[in-house]
Amino acid sequence: MDYTKILNKISEELSNFSNSGKIASYIPELSKVDPSKYGVHLYCTLGSHHAYGDTKERFSIQSISKVFSLTLVMKLLGDALWERMDVEPSGNAYNSLFQLERENGIPRNPFINSGALVLADILVSEYEKPKDEILKFVRNISEVTSIDFDEKVAHSEKQHGYRNAALANLMKSFGNIKNDISTVLDVYFYQCSLAMSCEELAKAFMVYANQGKLLKTGEEIVNPIKVQRINALMQTCGFYDEAGEFAFRVGLPGKSGVGGGIVAIHPEKYSAAVWSPKLNERGNSLLGMETLERLTTKTGLSIF
Amino acid sequence: MDYTKILNKISEELSNFSNSGKIASYIPELSKVDPSKYGVHLYCTLGSHHAYGDTKERFSIQSISKVFSLTLVMKLLGDALWERMDVEPSGNAYNSLFQLERENGIPRNPFINSGALVLADILVSEYEKPKDEILKFVRNISEVTSIDFDEKVAHSEKQHGYRNAALANLMKSFGNIKNDISTVLDVYFYQCSLAMSCEELAKAFMVYANQGKLLKTGEEIVNPIKVQRINALMQTCGFYDEAGEFAFRVGLPGKSGVGGGIVAIHPEKYSAAVWSPKLNERGNSLLGMETLERLTTKTGLSIF
Amino acid sequence: MDYTKILNKISEELSNFSNSGKIASYIPELSKVDPSKYGVHLYCTLGSHHAYGDTKERFSIQSISKVFSLTLVMKLLGDALWERMDVEPSGNAYNSLFQLERENGIPRNPFINSGALVLADILVSEYEKPKDEILKFVRNISEVTSIDFDEKVAHSEKQHGYRNAALANLMKSFGNIKNDISTVLDVYFYQCSLAMSCEELAKAFMVYANQGKLLKTGEEIVNPIKVQRINALMQTCGFYDEAGEFAFRVGLPGKSGVGGGIVAIHPEKYSAAVWSPKLNERGNSLLGMETLERLTTKTGLSIF
Amino acid sequence: MDYTKILNKISEELSNFSNSGKIASYIPELSKVDPSKYGVHLYCTLGSHHAYGDTKERFSIQSISKVFSLTLVMKLLGDALWERMDVEPSGNAYNSLFQLERENGIPRNPFINSGALVLADILVSEYEKPKDEILKFVRNISEVTSIDFDEKVAHSEKQHGYRNAALANLMKSFGNIKNDISTVLDVYFYQCSLAMSCEELAKAFMVYANQGKLLKTGEEIVNPIKVQRINALMQTCGFYDEAGEFAFRVGLPGKSGVGGGIVAIHPEKYSAAVWSPKLNERGNSLLGMETLERLTTKTGLSIF
Repeated sequence: MDYTKILNKISEELSNFSNSGKIASYIPELSKVDPSKYGVHLYCTLGSHHAYGDTKERFSIQSISKVFSLTLVMKLLGDALWERMDVEPSGNAYNSLFQLERENGIPRNPFINSGALVLADILVSEYEKPKDEILKFVRNISEVTSIDFDEKVAHSEKQHGYRNAALANLMKSFGNIKNDISTVLDVYFYQCSLAMSCEELAKAFMVYANQGKLLKTGEEIVNPIKVQRINALMQTCGFYDEAGEFAFRVGLPGKSGVGGGIVAIHPEKYSAAVWSPKLNERGNSLLGMETLERLTTKTGLSIF
Repeated sequence: MDYTKILNKISEELSNFSNSGKIASYIPELSKVDPSKYGVHLYCTLGSHHAYGDTKERFSIQSISKVFSLTLVMKLLGDALWERMDVEPSGNAYNSLFQLERENGIPRNPFINSGALVLADILVSEYEKPKDEILKFVRNISEVTSIDFDEKVAHSEKQHGYRNAALANLMKSFGNIKNDISTVLDVYFYQCSLAMSCEELAKAFMVYANQGKLLKTGEEIVNPIKVQRINALMQTCGFYDEAGEFAFRVGLPGKSGVGGGIVAIHPEKYSAAVWSPKLNERGNSLLGMETLERLTTKTGLSIF
Repeated sequence: MDYTKILNKISEELSNFSNSGKIASYIPELSKVDPSKYGVHLYCTLGSHHAYGDTKERFSIQSISKVFSLTLVMKLLGDALWERMDVEPSGNAYNSLFQLERENGIPRNPFINSGALVLADILVSEYEKPKDEILKFVRNISEVTSIDFDEKVAHSEKQHGYRNAALANLMKSFGNIKNDISTVLDVYFYQCSLAMSCEELAKAFMVYANQGKLLKTGEEIVNPIKVQRINALMQTCGFYDEAGEFAFRVGLPGKSGVGGGIVAIHPEKYSAAVWSPKLNERGNSLLGMETLERLTTKTGLSIF
Repeated sequence: MDYTKILNKISEELSNFSNSGKIASYIPELSKVDPSKYGVHLYCTLGSHHAYGDTKERFSIQSISKVFSLTLVMKLLGDALWERMDVEPSGNAYNSLFQLERENGIPRNPFINSGALVLADILVSEYEKPKDEILKFVRNISEVTSIDFDEKVAHSEKQHGYRNAALANLMKSFGNIKNDISTVLDVYFYQCSLAMSCEELAKAFMVYANQGKLLKTGEEIVNPIKVQRINALMQTCGFYDEAGEFAFRVGLPGKSGVGGGIVAIHPEKYSAAVWSPKLNERGNSLLGMETLERLTTKTGLSIF
């Protein structure tokens, strides 16, 4: 399969694509990005890299970071985690309070904001320096030591994080946040501010395409059963209330962020990362989804 | 992979399993089934059959039939179908009216009852004898000409189908049911009453594991892209509000029915059907899910 | 208090009122009404009548009829009625299925559609000829023997009553409708089709302003405690999800219908009926509410 | 009407009443109250006082205080207030986030927690020392200068106020809280901690029974139209999701608090305050409602 040729073909087709999406504007820092940025990077389990466009420029990975915190927590906790959250798609927007209230403060899954806040709470309980541990983990699996938080983005999130504060307070009222709310929010906002490029994301997500092992050394980071479950969660819950659409059109486990990034993996075949800042109505990169749909259509291969 | 050995091992393990599930009782006809029935049948794309237990006895396939009607409608309609329903997990019970009301009579997906009623409505519009066409299709893909509706079950459903009548009337008020409601309900109740054995289900679902082609003749029944999308829908929406759990634990596209049957497919590997009438709280066969979880754990293979 | 003068003054003020309301269009028959019709009739407990405009022309009273069926049922049943419905404002639209589903088929109050359908179901259980009994009751309390159903309106409702059929089926699935659904809907649609003029409505509702007694003869139709409770229900639930607004602005118990009629009563002072077919966004007569607000403002008297 | 005799009669009847209610336990401070406390005080517009039981002992008035803050805000703001909240019953629990989220941060009415938080926010905007102004107002209308906040209760609320913090943060995310959240919560928690006796509450609420004027001096505190509207709001929204029940059974405008107090007024007749700490399932004093129902039944007089 000549992935480079396929990526070039897709990019050529999409060069005339009329993009009706909109950049995330809920925090000022995110709205400063150049909307025309576009990159796609595919990393093959056979070891080859295939790239097109702005694949070396870092952007705010936002909710993609939830996969990293989930992995850390699954390594720490085992099944006890699932007493504090469920594994079901929510059928509602990522920041909805409705279900959380009706279901007594138990988030539907780890990828909606409430779920990720509980993950952050667990990291605060388990680690002395949770933010350092997140950095260490991401640098390790991507093999890029310069990856870091974006202080400006983290600060901007804090200034406008009332909705997340509402979620955290609601869960605290049900006893499902154990630590001080501002500490938990701090970890969460920093985690979301991680700045990474498509190339770096593709490298980091290879571990999920490679049954939990680093591709170069073969070192096991997470055990295969856990990786399969993380992938299953990406498939059913990775795109807010558009997870079904992504499974239907693209057919790969993946995770998106409001910074315009999407990662997807084809188990034992490749990991891929796309970046285009304009989002569709449900908060997912419009061109990113289009790119990945064409990728699985042109290769004729999805997990289904 | 010695599937027969694996099925025997699983069955042995589960022989001591304490089953807290309950038989579906919402219609009298379904509650008459022997709760101890248990069968699992695996049909490999290499052509081999592997079976354990009551795999030749027919039971009411109920919602599993929605996969058949979806396939028929996708062959007939193309993308126009998706103007009348969505492809997202609902996050609610299979027969919920809440979302349907809030979303103006557009069902979340084809596998909740409202979605399947719209499918039935389309079959009524497109075919002179929709029930005959359903039978013809199922007999064709399973290569079993004796498969038929169970008149008693269909009749019993009709006598207790107020919730489905509520869904149909609500959608009709939004213009999303085109035909006479009682005609649509009749097709729907008959379709759900289809009686099939595990062996017959595994044979019928081979077409979904085999990229849309009959295994024996290679004849294309549905094109590969459509099959991948049907499989994606089974993955994200095939188990009511437990689709995430099934993806998480089992990791295969599948569909369950309140008769206690579950089908699952591993693309290009196998189709499998399990039957055990006792259901968990969310309406899925308790032992069926347990069986399939052990199957993917023991083989070490899921689609993820 | 010179009510005639006050009504003239109000009508003069409102002659220049720019009415942004819209005629009910959900059934064809209702949309045929002349939108400029306007009448207000006040009937004083001292015996005097005060009228302005089209007060002798009959219109479709629609949901106002629910007060009559509630009264009949309260006379028949006593407190057993409240096992089948509640007395709380719904906070939702009059035809919402959401709460009904969440609250197991128990309507929030007798004045939303689901509640009125349960009332109709009770009348079907208790009377051999429920429609005749409704007519008899209304003719009796209004002392107008020519009051009748409007067959065309009743027929038109039936042709478009899918939402009400959905409510009835949903409640039947919970066991809260005892009789055949089409029989219950027939009674309900006929009851809603009652045609009465403002004058006739004011006469009929005098019984609620007069502690349950006919004004002329003193005959007790309902006992005073029950009348006070019916009035309380009109206050808290008489205007769909605008009951609070009506209490806030007008300050009298009342009931509206989508035909553009509103009745209101000031206990031991008067009953009043207004008619203007154009409705506000919540389905209540825009000019009707305006008229009654000015009435209580100009008299300086509400029940509060 | 011999009110003293009626109160004695009611208290005698209720002495054998089996009270299944439960003391509010969500903050430790409230759960320390003696559950057997009982008092009822009626203050007649003719000037007489009628009391039974523990009517001179102060308790935490909690949500009853919302009537005072609403009155202050209505004096300050006029109709601009209603751009920030509605006047409709909510149909949900007093602290529900569901509607608030769906309705973009606009509370249903001033008496649910979210509405009262907006009132507190307005007081923070309008007054330099809002807590002092609240005290001043209550002392003025009750003519009791020793009324004060209970610091322990206010402090205890703050320690457990996560649900209210969630409401405030959610509204802030919609722009409907203007000031710093902790400042607004501080005012709110202090206001709720006001300690008053039945006698003091009856005196304070006389202004609502007396068309806005102090009974002794005739000084107008609020204009009559505004008082009628406050009374209307008490009627439709004063008892969380039990407002309909209170209107139905008691038939007077009123307001309850989780401290076990209820005030009610009969315009131009009397104000009344009851106290019994055990609450029913919906958070209203069980014996308090029972007492007031008997009061209007025995006098034969409600506003309806």
